[in-house]
Amino acid sequence: DEIRDFARQIVEKEIERHSADGLGMADYALVSSGARVVRHSEPHDGTSVSGSWLRNRNKISFAAEKMIMPSFGEPGQCFPLKGRSGFVVIKLRTAIVPEAVTLEHVAKSVAYDRSSAPKHCIVSGWMQGPDSVDLEIGMNKMKLLTEFTYDLDKTNAQTFKVDPSAQSLVDTIRFDVTSNHGSPSHICIYRLRVHGHEPKLEIQS
Amino acid sequence: DEIRDFARQIVEKEIERHSADGLGMADYALVSSGARVVRHSEPHDGTSVSGSWLRNRNKISFAAEKMIMPSFGEPGQCFPLKGRSGFVVIKLRTAIVPEAVTLEHVAKSVAYDRSSAPKHCIVSGWMQGPDSVDLEIGMNKMKLLTEFTYDLDKTNAQTFKVDPSAQSLVDTIRFDVTSNHGSPSHICIYRLRVHGHEPKLEIQS
Amino acid sequence: DEIRDFARQIVEKEIERHSADGLGMADYALVSSGARVVRHSEPHDGTSVSGSWLRNRNKISFAAEKMIMPSFGEPGQCFPLKGRSGFVVIKLRTAIVPEAVTLEHVAKSVAYDRSSAPKHCIVSGWMQGPDSVDLEIGMNKMKLLTEFTYDLDKTNAQTFKVDPSAQSLVDTIRFDVTSNHGSPSHICIYRLRVHGHEPKLEIQS
Ligand SMILES: [K+]
Ligand SMILES: [K+]
Ligand SMILES: [K+]
Repeated sequence: DEIRDFARQIVEKEIERHSADGLGMADYALVSSGARVVRHSEPHDGTSVSGSWLRNRNKISFAAEKMIMPSFGEPGQCFPLKGRSGFVVIKLRTAIVPEAVTLEHVAKSVAYDRSSAPKHCIVSGWMQGPDSVDLEIGMNKMKLLTEFTYDLDKTNAQTFKVDPSAQSLVDTIRFDVTSNHGSPSHICIYRLRVHGHEPKLEIQS
Repeated sequence: DEIRDFARQIVEKEIERHSADGLGMADYALVSSGARVVRHSEPHDGTSVSGSWLRNRNKISFAAEKMIMPSFGEPGQCFPLKGRSGFVVIKLRTAIVPEAVTLEHVAKSVAYDRSSAPKHCIVSGWMQGPDSVDLEIGMNKMKLLTEFTYDLDKTNAQTFKVDPSAQSLVDTIRFDVTSNHGSPSHICIYRLRVHGHEPKLEIQS
Repeated sequence: DEIRDFARQIVEKEIERHSADGLGMADYALVSSGARVVRHSEPHDGTSVSGSWLRNRNKISFAAEKMIMPSFGEPGQCFPLKGRSGFVVIKLRTAIVPEAVTLEHVAKSVAYDRSSAPKHCIVSGWMQGPDSVDLEIGMNKMKLLTEFTYDLDKTNAQTFKVDPSAQSLVDTIRFDVTSNHGSPSHICIYRLRVHGHEPKLEIQS
């Protein structure tokens, strides 16, 4: 009976964590919270013509939002980028001190092919400020938050810490995928989450 | 091995319950089952002008449906009402004898801010009948089903029983939030469920 | 402590499986993977006129896709067919050797009525090839994959194996429901999944 109680407690806690978006950590890159993809490299959709893409660099693909919303374990709910490397810039819900990022790919057991999963990745961040400020100006100030390798043999949502020495207030991050797991044609980004805390407002008296 | 079996049984049962809409109880207020929001107090959306809202009391906000559909643990999937108190009237899927209601808010661990969660709540019900009948006429007959306080320290879906003495056939309920957990501007209702049973038809011979 | 570890391991494994689309098996009939409903018997929607349906046999109901997408435990997320028997033809994501099929209905605990659940079912398959080929021609070649009875007392997603002797390359399957669990008016198909493996390409040197 004691064992049964132990087991039940563990199960309830794990299911609660699972229900809480799988990780139980607030995600400041979630589209429904107000975050937005504001730039990305050329999408892989079989229809875009490279030339037209290059002439209109500020265009955002409709599929871009997929990488900042839940996938619910379904294959295909990702944002595909052309080639073996690519990048995405995300304006967060609000300015935070980033503590970790989570990269999620489709689960091994339900995937048809995982060669398009990101492999080497770099996450950078900066304080961009109001939408009227040119993105290039902000990007000049960007600092490395974390660099990691997504491992196909581990669980499908992998969290990487931001070194405390690199933690400073940012409202925009850039996610660079510098290699994938073998696909010659594209990268699929299922979901990127950005965790951290909002700075406490100090009320001066 | 016996322990392992114990644990596995508990896990399977809990996951089954979790998959069954989290609670394993039929919800007669679910929008996909045919339930509808038929009236509500002024929504909080940053765009509505109070005056125009008041002139058109039968208008239903597009966001109203969010409170009678699943949230899947995602912040923001709620119906926001203006102010620290407000109400919603829901026509149920069919007439039932209500046994309990469940109020769900976003999980603590993924929330950015929970000051907009409902605190003191009152649920009333009545038999409204066909859509042609004026809602005011039905509301005059309404009876208290349950009164409760949503507790931010407990699990995010909280179920409250309807006292057996208050159980009678209803097809419409009114959900009043009389206070929230601190936000001066609004209330967020993630999901309200209404549980109960359909009366058995007695065939007369 | 050892017990606690045991329990935790089991829970984590089960939740991983649950998150991986509930079963942890790739589904080649999933709409987001590219699968499509290409024919079906008359839908039950309260609006279609039998005559007009019969005059236009190639018409696909908008609701047909619901049977090849996740239900997330919500009642009503199904494709309803008229009568106590009916069929659906699905073009799979790609040609596979089918190993099993899973039929899912809404969970007992959240259902209002399960008399529309399929009972006796037959799954057949064939190699249809390019979309330009007439479906009737392909259907003439179809072979039985499996025949089963959906049991309302078991778990809501029930998997049935394809006998190894019946396994051959198919890209299209036909799902026949020959009886339901009592409803005189219709059948509800929540989700049909088709599991198997893609043939390995042998590179000739
Ligand atoms: K996604
Ligand atoms: K909701
Ligand atoms: K479905």
